[in-house]
Amino acid sequence: MSQFRQNPITKHWVLIAPNRAKRPEQFNTSAVMSKGLAEVVPACIFCPGNESKNVEIARFPQGKNWQIRIIENKFEALSHVPLSRRADELYVNRSGDGEHEVIITRKHNEPVALQSTETVKATLQVFKQRIIDLSKRSDIAYIQIFHNHGRDAGASLIHPHYQILATPIVPQTLHDEMLGCYHYYRASGSCIYCDIIKEEIAQKERVIINGENFLVIAPYASRSPFESWILPKKHLSRFEDIGAEQIQELAYILKVVLGQLYLKLSDPPLNFYLHTMPPARSKHLAYEEQSYHWHITVFPRITIWAGFEYATGIPINPMPPETAAGFLK
Amino acid sequence: MSQFRQNPITKHWVLIAPNRAKRPEQFNTSAVMSKGLAEVVPACIFCPGNESKNVEIARFPQGKNWQIRIIENKFEALSHVPLSRRADELYVNRSGDGEHEVIITRKHNEPVALQSTETVKATLQVFKQRIIDLSKRSDIAYIQIFHNHGRDAGASLIHPHYQILATPIVPQTLHDEMLGCYHYYRASGSCIYCDIIKEEIAQKERVIINGENFLVIAPYASRSPFESWILPKKHLSRFEDIGAEQIQELAYILKVVLGQLYLKLSDPPLNFYLHTMPPARSKHLAYEEQSYHWHITVFPRITIWAGFEYATGIPINPMPPETAAGFLK
Repeated sequence: MSQFRQNPITKHWVLIAPNRAKRPEQFNTSAVMSKGLAEVVPACIFCPGNESKNVEIARFPQGKNWQIRIIENKFEALSHVPLSRRADELYVNRSGDGEHEVIITRKHNEPVALQSTETVKATLQVFKQRIIDLSKRSDIAYIQIFHNHGRDAGASLIHPHYQILATPIVPQTLHDEMLGCYHYYRASGSCIYCDIIKEEIAQKERVIINGENFLVIAPYASRSPFESWILPKKHLSRFEDIGAEQIQELAYILKVVLGQLYLKLSDPPLNFYLHTMPPARSKHLAYEEQSYHWHITVFPRITIWAGFEYATGIPINPMPPETAAGFLK
Repeated sequence: MSQFRQNPITKHWVLIAPNRAKRPEQFNTSAVMSKGLAEVVPACIFCPGNESKNVEIARFPQGKNWQIRIIENKFEALSHVPLSRRADELYVNRSGDGEHEVIITRKHNEPVALQSTETVKATLQVFKQRIIDLSKRSDIAYIQIFHNHGRDAGASLIHPHYQILATPIVPQTLHDEMLGCYHYYRASGSCIYCDIIKEEIAQKERVIINGENFLVIAPYASRSPFESWILPKKHLSRFEDIGAEQIQELAYILKVVLGQLYLKLSDPPLNFYLHTMPPARSKHLAYEEQSYHWHITVFPRITIWAGFEYATGIPINPMPPETAAGFLK
C-alpha cells in the first residue's frame, strides 16, 4: 500500500510505493528510438490489439481506430486506499490515495518529437479534459501530468506515453513556485512570469522561439543543458482554461522544441511536465490566481546528478543557457 | 567563468560551470569495478607515477609511498574569480568563487567498500583537517565533501576519489535542514537527530547497525531503496570536532555499510556525502549549534528520477525502508 511520508527535518515528502517494484524493465540501453520501425509491436501492452490487457478510462476517437487512450497504470504509485494520517512528535505520513493514469498514443515507434501536430494537439486536449474531470474530486489536491522519454529519463517502456498522477497533497515544487510568485506579486503588483517574458524578449539572448501566443526560453538559472520553458504570453494561472487557438499553437511549438532536440542532439533522453495552478478550493486562493502562471518545462537528461547535487540541492550545469539558446534557436 | 544563479521564482541556486564541459568521460557503462584488477593503471591521472599531472595540495604520508593525496580539480566547478554580484528586479547571481579539490587514495581498482579500515580512517582524518583549514577563510560559507561511485552516480573516473567543494553560499539543502532543526529545537528544547536516534533504537525496524558511537538507519522517509544515514550518537554539530576513537569506529561502520551494499547488491552505483554545521561566523549561531547534528548520507542510485520527481520534488521509492533495513542488517 502506498504511503506519503514526510522527512521530519526538511518537511519534504516522499512517496513509498511498493507496487512499483513489480514494474517491468523492458529495455536497458540509453539509446531511445528511431524512425522507420514497426508501428505495432505485438508484445507491447500499449499497442493496438492488446487493448484488453489494460483497464481503459477513455479512448479518442471511439472504436478500433483510436489514436489516444487513457488507461489505468498497472503498477500504480497511488492507489484507492482509505484516507489515513499518522502524526506523532517525529513522523508524519498519509495514505498514498489518488489516481495514476497513463495516456498512450497509437504508434509504437513514434516519439512525440515525430508525431503530427494533430496528434500532439489531440493529446493536449485530453490533458485539458482530464484536469477538468479530476479537479471535480474533493480528495485530489493536484494533478501532475508528465512525460518520460528514454531509460535515462526514467521511462520503462518504449511505446510513447504520458502519465497523470492526481495526488492528495500539493507537491513541494508547486508550493515553492506559488509562494515565490505570491511574494513577488505582493511586492511588485505583477506576475513574475509575465515580467520574465517581457525581460527575456527585451534581452533576446535566451529566447529560443518567440511565437504569437508562446515564448520559449532557456531559463536564466537552467539546471541542465538545453532546459527549456514554454510560457504562454497571456497571463493564465490554469492550463485547463486554454483556448482552442492557443492549443493549436502550443502543439506546434512543443513539436518544434522536441524536434530540435531530437535532430540536434540525436534523440536525447528527456522529461517534460506541466505546472499549473491546483484546482480552486476556496475563495482565499484568488490572490494566488493573479500571481501564478502555467507553463511547461522540457528537461533533457544530459547531465547526471552526482553527490554534490543531492548533498546541496545545487545542480551543476556545464552549459550557460545563453549558449543553449544560441544552439537551439 | 563559473557563476551561481538564482531561480527568481523558487530562489533555488544553480551553479553554471562551463569549465566542466571539458571533463573527460573515461567510461560509459554502468558496471562499476571489481576485485583483483591492477593496482596501478598508467593511463589514469590519479595513479602513482602520474603525480606531476595534477597540482598537489598535500599528500599523506610524505614521499613516493603516499596513500592519500589532495589535488586541485582540473575541471573545477568553482574557480578563483573576483567577487561579483548582480541583483536586479528579476535576476540574481554571484561569481562561482571557491575551491574544488579532489582527494584520491592510492590503488586504482579498490573502491572504498574494499579498502582497509586504516585507509578509510586516514581519509576521514584528511576530511577533518581539510574542513579545519578551509574554515579559516572568510570567503567560504560551506565545505561540501562527497563521493561518487559508478557512472550512474555521476563518477567520470574509476580511480576512487572524493571531492571537496568549498562554496561562497550555504547550500539550499543545508539551509533547509538547519531551519528544520532550529524550529524543532525551539518547540521541543531538544535536537531532532538525537530524538530520531532514541526513537529508532526503540522501534528497531529501521536500524541497520547499532554501534557503540554510531547508529545506522534506513530513514523513515527514504528517497531511494537502501538509503542509509550514519548518525553519531553523541550530539555534535560539526564533523571536525570528532574524536580519535569515534573516527576509528566511523571508518569501520562506513566500510561495513558500503561493503554490505557491494556484496548484497553487486557493487551498485552510489553517492555518499557529509552534512555538517557551516563554519562559525558570529555569536548568533550559538542557538543553531545546539540544534544541528552532523551525519553522513549513503545514497545508492538504484532508481532513476523521472518526470514526476523533477516536476513535484517528491521522489517515488518502491521499497519501504523497513524492508531495506531487514535486508541490510
